Order: sequence, then C-alpha cells, then structure tokens
Amino acid sequence: MPLPPDGDPGTPAPHATRGPALTPLAGGTEGPRQLRPLLDTVLEALATGATARGGPIPAGGPEAVGHRLRVAAEPLIPEAGIGPHAALRAVVGALAEGAADPADPLCAAHLHCPPLAVATAADLAASALNPSMDSWDQAPAASVLEDLVSRGLATEVYPEGPAPDALVTTGGTESNQLAVLIARELAKDRGPLQIVCGANAHHSVRRAAWLLGLPEPVVLPTPAGVLSPAGLDQALTDVRGPLLAVATAGTTDTGEIDPLPQLADVCAAHATRLHVDAAYGAPLLFSRTLAGRLDGLSRADSVTLDLHKLGWQPVPAGLLAVPDTTALETLGHREDYLNPPDDTEAGFPDLLGRSIRTTRRPDVVKVAVTLRALGRTGLAELVEHTCAAAQRLADLVDAHPAFDAYERPTLSTVLFRPAGATDEHVGAVRRALMTEGRAVLGRARATDHRDGIEKLWLKATVLNPHTRPADLEALLEIVEGSAAK
Amino acid sequence: MPLPPDGDPGTPAPHATRGPALTPLAGGTEGPRQLRPLLDTVLEALATGATARGGPIPAGGPEAVGHRLRVAAEPLIPEAGIGPHAALRAVVGALAEGAADPADPLCAAHLHCPPLAVATAADLAASALNPSMDSWDQAPAASVLEDLVSRGLATEVYPEGPAPDALVTTGGTESNQLAVLIARELAKDRGPLQIVCGANAHHSVRRAAWLLGLPEPVVLPTPAGVLSPAGLDQALTDVRGPLLAVATAGTTDTGEIDPLPQLADVCAAHATRLHVDAAYGAPLLFSRTLAGRLDGLSRADSVTLDLHKLGWQPVPAGLLAVPDTTALETLGHREDYLNPPDDTEAGFPDLLGRSIRTTRRPDVVKVAVTLRALGRTGLAELVEHTCAAAQRLADLVDAHPAFDAYERPTLSTVLFRPAGATDEHVGAVRRALMTEGRAVLGRARATDHRDGIEKLWLKATVLNPHTRPADLEALLEIVEGSAAK
Repeated sequence: MPLPPDGDPGTPAPHATRGPALTPLAGGTEGPRQLRPLLDTVLEALATGATARGGPIPAGGPEAVGHRLRVAAEPLIPEAGIGPHAALRAVVGALAEGAADPADPLCAAHLHCPPLAVATAADLAASALNPSMDSWDQAPAASVLEDLVSRGLATEVYPEGPAPDALVTTGGTESNQLAVLIARELAKDRGPLQIVCGANAHHSVRRAAWLLGLPEPVVLPTPAGVLSPAGLDQALTDVRGPLLAVATAGTTDTGEIDPLPQLADVCAAHATRLHVDAAYGAPLLFSRTLAGRLDGLSRADSVTLDLHKLGWQPVPAGLLAVPDTTALETLGHREDYLNPPDDTEAGFPDLLGRSIRTTRRPDVVKVAVTLRALGRTGLAELVEHTCAAAQRLADLVDAHPAFDAYERPTLSTVLFRPAGATDEHVGAVRRALMTEGRAVLGRARATDHRDGIEKLWLKATVLNPHTRPADLEALLEIVEGSAAK
Repeated sequence: MPLPPDGDPGTPAPHATRGPALTPLAGGTEGPRQLRPLLDTVLEALATGATARGGPIPAGGPEAVGHRLRVAAEPLIPEAGIGPHAALRAVVGALAEGAADPADPLCAAHLHCPPLAVATAADLAASALNPSMDSWDQAPAASVLEDLVSRGLATEVYPEGPAPDALVTTGGTESNQLAVLIARELAKDRGPLQIVCGANAHHSVRRAAWLLGLPEPVVLPTPAGVLSPAGLDQALTDVRGPLLAVATAGTTDTGEIDPLPQLADVCAAHATRLHVDAAYGAPLLFSRTLAGRLDGLSRADSVTLDLHKLGWQPVPAGLLAVPDTTALETLGHREDYLNPPDDTEAGFPDLLGRSIRTTRRPDVVKVAVTLRALGRTGLAELVEHTCAAAQRLADLVDAHPAFDAYERPTLSTVLFRPAGATDEHVGAVRRALMTEGRAVLGRARATDHRDGIEKLWLKATVLNPHTRPADLEALLEIVEGSAAK
C-alpha cells in the first residue's frame, strides 16, 4: 500500500492505489469524512502560527516575513508532492505566523475585519460544495439562497421598495463599478456619463470611470470631510451631459457620512441619479439606536454594501442594492450553454445577468448563516459595541496630552496624531509600530479643524467587536512610546 | 450563564455574558478552538445533505428545490438569532441537499470541477485569517505567497521569461477582461482597440469589450470548431486600428484548442497582440504526455488560466499570465491610505496595482497548498486520468448505436446526441435528466461534420478525476433511457 509521503492519518483505504484515489474530493457523501483530518491539521497550524506570531503582526518587516514564508512554501511545485498534511502544516502555519490579524485589537489599520467563527465555518461549505452561480444546474439551492439574501438585504436599505434587489459582488470596488456601469448604460443615448463625487469618495469611483471608458470624474473638494450640498448643487448646475452623483456613508479616511438627505434633495432637484457608497456604514441599519445616521440612504438610486467590514464576514461579501430590480436588467445576457431560451421557458432560472463575472462562488452562504445565527439583535449589538469602542478611544485621545485628536468618530474610525509631530514623523511612527510587530494602524490625510491645515494622521479603524477598554489604553500607550522615540 | 438558543457544545466560558462575547472570532490563538465544534456541525450537515440528495442533483426541478431551501433559510433575518449550530445545520444542510455536486461523476455539465479536499481545507485558512491583498499591512505573508504563486505559475506558461508574472483573478472572465484592458491601455494613443476573435471564444471576450467601452469584437466564424489561421490573417489585413487577437486553448463548447503555433505566426506577421484564453487547457502543461498540445502558448502576449477547472480548486482560482511583469504596469495605482510613497520607499511592497479589485481574499493559499501537496507528478496524473476518462466515454459513444458522436475529445469534453433526434428533443432530454435528479449534462451547438449542419448536442464535461469506466457506462445508459421516452 503506497502511503503518501507524510504518512498522516486520514489516508485512503488500501485499495486506493492509483494517484487520483490518493487525492480525495471535498464533495459527495465521502467528502466530509475526508475533510475532517485535513481540517484538524489546518486548525493546529492556525493555532501554532498565531502563537508563534504573538501579536497583531509579525515583527521584522517585509524582509523577515518574506524569508520565513519562502522557507515554508518553496519549492512551490516540487516534482513529487510532499502530501496534504505536510503542505497544510507548512503553508498555513507560515501564513498564520505572518498574518496581520484583525482578531487582535491592536490590528486596526483598515476596514479589515476579524471574521466571525460562524461565518468562517459556513464559508467552508461554499468551498466544499463549490456551486457556481452562473447557471441553475451548477447551483440549484445556492441560487435560491442568493436570491433570498439579495432581496432581504436590499429590503433593509429600501424598505419601501418597489422591488428591492441586489447584486452580489467582490466588494465595494466592484459594487461602485457596477453602479457606474448601470448609470452608463441608462444614459448611453444621451452621451458619455459624467461622474460628480467628493474628494472623500473611495478611489474605486475614479477607477471605475477609467475602467468603463468614461471621462474622469468631477471631484469636489471636501475640506470639512464630507460632501457639501451647496457644492454639489453648483456642480450639477455647471456640468453638462448625463450625470451620476456619488456620495459616501462612511468614508475610508475618517468614517464620516455625507449629508444624505440634503444631497438627495439636490439630486432630486437636478433629476440626477445618486449612488451612495455605504460599504462601511450600511450595517448601522440593523441598530435601532444608530440607523438614524443613515437617513436619506433609501433615496439613493443604488447603494454599495460590504459585509466584510461592519458585518464580520470573511472577504468577500459585497453587494450593490437597488430599489427596483428592473434597474439591473441592463446586465442581462444570454449564452446558449448557460441560459438557453428553451430552459428559461421551462422554468429554469436565468442567473447570468446577476454579475459581470461568470463562474462565481456563493458568498451568500456565510452571510445567510450569520444573519440566521445572530438575528437582527445580535448584529446590532456587534455594531453598537464596535462604535462605542471607537467613542471610548476618542475619549482617551481627547484626555491624553501627548495626542491631538481629529473630530469625534461618526462610525468607528478615530484619527489622532502625536501633538506637534511632522507628517514625516507620523508616517515613520506607523512604520515603526508595524516593523516592531507592536500595532497596525492606518494613516489618513485630513484637515485639522483647529488650524485649517491638511495633515497626516494615524488612523485606528476599530472593527473588532471584542475590543475592551484595556486594549484601547494599551494601544495608546504603545503609540505614545513609539512616537516619543 | 446564558446559553445560546441552540445550546450546542462549543459555547463560551461562563464569564462571557455580553452579546459580542457570544460571537467568537475565527482568528487569533483562540479562533481554532472556537472553529472546531462549528466545523463539526458543518461536516455533519454536508454529509446529511449529500445523503438526502442521493444523486448528482436534487430531483424535482427549481420549484421543489426552492421550496426546501426557503423552509430552511427563512426568515433570513429573525429578530433574535437561532444560534450558530442551528443556523449552520439548517442552511448548510439544505445547501448540500440542493446542490449539483460535481463530486458525483454523473454531474458533468460544465467546467465546474469537484474540488480536492486538501484545497478546500486550505481555503478555510484564507477565510479564518482573512488577509486582504490590497496592502502589505493586511497581508504580510499572504502577499509573499501570492507573489510566489503568480510568478511560479506564469513561469509554467512562459518558461523563457523574460520576467513571467501573473495577476490573480476571480476567473477566466476577469482574466480575459484584464487582458483586453491591458491591450486597450497599451494602444490608447493609437485609437480604440479592436478585438478579433473566433465565434468559439468565451462570451467574456465580447462582454469585456462592452464593459471597457470598446467597439464590438470582429467575430470570425469557426465552423470547424477552431479559429482558422487563414481567416485570422485576412481579418488582421482588413480591420483597421490597434488590434488584439484572441484565441482559445480549450473551448467551452467542445474543448478544442485553436492552432496556436499558426495563429501566433499570423499575429507576429501582423505585429498584432495575441491573447490566449487557456482557462480550460492550461493545466496540460503539468503533464509530460499532454503538454505538447499547448505548443505555441508561450508565444501569446497574455494567457488566461483557471485552476478551478482542470486544477480542482474551489472557485475562484483564476490567473492572467504575462511573459514580462512590465506589461502589468498599466494597472499601477497609488492611494495614500494603501501605498503611500514613503512606505514604498521604506521597502513596504506596493500591492494595489495587482488587481482591479481592492479588498481581495488570498485565493492563492489553496493553490499553493495543492501544488506543494501533489507536486507536478500528482497534478499531471489527475489531468491525464481525466482526459483518459473522456476518451473512454467517446469510445463508448462511438460504439453505441443509439448515439451520434461529435469529434474525438481534445481535452475532456465529449459531445453526443441521440441518433436522429431533433434539437428540441435534445434540449428536453437534458432538462428531464436534471429534473429527475439522474444526471447533469451540458449542451452545445456545433457543426456535425457528417452533414455540415449545426446541431444541438449533449455535452459531458468530464472533470471528475475519480470517474471510473462504470460511471461512464451508467451515464450513457441513463441518457439512452431518457432519450427513448
């Protein structure tokens, strides 16, 4: 009986002598039994790697991390395989040891959340079953689940319909791109679409214009951090051609929310289409106490959501919601091998127009399981706890003589900087914290409202719902120590 | 001590009384311990669901499948959660029961592979650690692994360099889109890019032109199943402006490979850029006996690969390979919050230009583990076994009086049809097999070389490396029975 090179448990039965039989599949009735010992190895490697790392990010910077990873993963394509368990131990172990782990409260640089265990476990089912969302005969049940999740979440954004629907995307970037694409197609008989957005909009808005062959967006300055209704009104008056206004509910740099009701009024007055990028802010809708901050969101023609931010999903869990499913018809597409007319007439759902991708994994599985497991109340608690932790951090910064604070956080982003520091020093402090493996903070340029000067700030994006006050105190202490050097 | 509603094992310690503490995270040193009981529930639900299904696809068609799924998943957002174990059992169980499972050899419609258990297990690590590939400080080790995999696989395509590199994509559709985007940008000073491709090219080529704001491709007829070098030569002579020729190594409909050496000669003579969509065929490169079928591939300016086809990865595992990394520079992009110049100067890698997405999960983890685990030999065996199974199926069809065969398979796609049937009957047979839950076959329009007439065929895309001769015999028997009705 030929044993795989690492002779681990979970090897196939003696009759399995051919190569293919030594490589069990994840699916079918046998898959779960085959997966179990492999998952044990993965969990062990994850735990070992996290312990070896011992902090939010490995110490040593890019060179040291790169060296350790290469030792574990090379040669990438050996002539003979080293076996599943040895490969999992080496690669997963090195990956965990070399991770910036958002489950550590001191890892708070980006809109990069620590995923919930329940969502992560659910995601395994998506990988094991491997449905592909481009035709019913590859995803009979998964396509129904996607429909439920798309309509369910779109209804959170647009409770008054008329027919809320959403496309599932790889994230805010693709959602924003699709919003621009839909607007481009609706406007195509009237000339090239012109986007008008704030300087605080996510870079994907400008990149979408480039990708889709549209003119560069008109970018309005946002010295106050948010888009000014008067400024938008002026721009919509001045700029010619079919327009799309883009606002943000939770900016990447400061977590601020553009004044949605007023911006919606301006767009209505100009009969201009409005897209709101709520990749960060949308989950406030689940909270009774916080949902009011998103007033006006339902007046947008399309809304970007990202449940891999304040939704604690493994990446990706993006959506683009619209109030009426007919807005999505412009993506309709027919290919005989995927959605032939005779199948559609016979009642088989036509999925191809649900994405600009073709093959697609069912990223709604983890989302559906999370929504069912936690319910509205459970999700709201996580959102509220996270936003409260950011307020607590802002309190600490305000009370701390060594730091200057930006404004009070709107969502869960806190900007601060060592008092009197230069921008160069702020950048260097951030890099030193990372290189020493002590903390992972982001950076943002924003106007200091005390002196009207744009400065570089340290950015703590609080996204860990388990963050305790002691973690926040420790974070500031670490930064203070590093900044004083 | 408040127990979660379903009171399952794996609940948190007694001190964890707040909501957030009842929702454990997947990361950190504690994550693996929290994941274990949840994964047990997932594996149980996968096994139970597969057993309940009892075949390649659930019986009953869209209505029955939809009903069962809705019972399990509604209400999608209850006010109070039902707890992680109950949610996993319900949703994952229904998903498995309602899956079209490519691990069943009778599920052979599409380029929809059964993933390997080792790849699926590795994918869990990607979800649990949740690195995001848009900046080093979200993916210190994962970004190095992506670099290794990108360069390693690109070197398989372009062994003679000069600096092979690849972008990781969501699949062939995005890879083809990126190939067109790169060509568009390289040509932008010379006018709008005009694509020339065969009618056998994947629909994503035409869709990329639409998406990127380019003229509709010139589509050359391919009655012989492959793109004719003489036809391409004529088109490149006739059509004006900067051009991109697109060929296919493994067409979606028939699995045929365009004559790459001759097409590369034609492109070289016209100084025209050539992209080859080898989403299906590229893994033949791992096999000493089959790699010769891809002669000429390395002469393409870019190549699409998809390891979620003949690479047995969970979706997605796409790549776009280029011979020289400088071809990717046109995607370069700078955003202060992700890749500020002072960080880049300090040696922190700049990742933002590696994709048109921003947040991105590390789909290379499963690929790296699979390559290390199986080695070149192990992967080659799987590819060879799968292609041999398709030849065997073609033998059976050839010998069977009830069926007409298309041509001998080039890769692993076998086209056949009940002798003398109408196209309508062929479509109906396929739907009946699906609705009865007996077999999942695809369909394709292709010219019958015996009478020169384009017909609708049943398509068996053999992608299951465990397929045995008995499975193929059973498949034909089932189809024969259904076709005779």
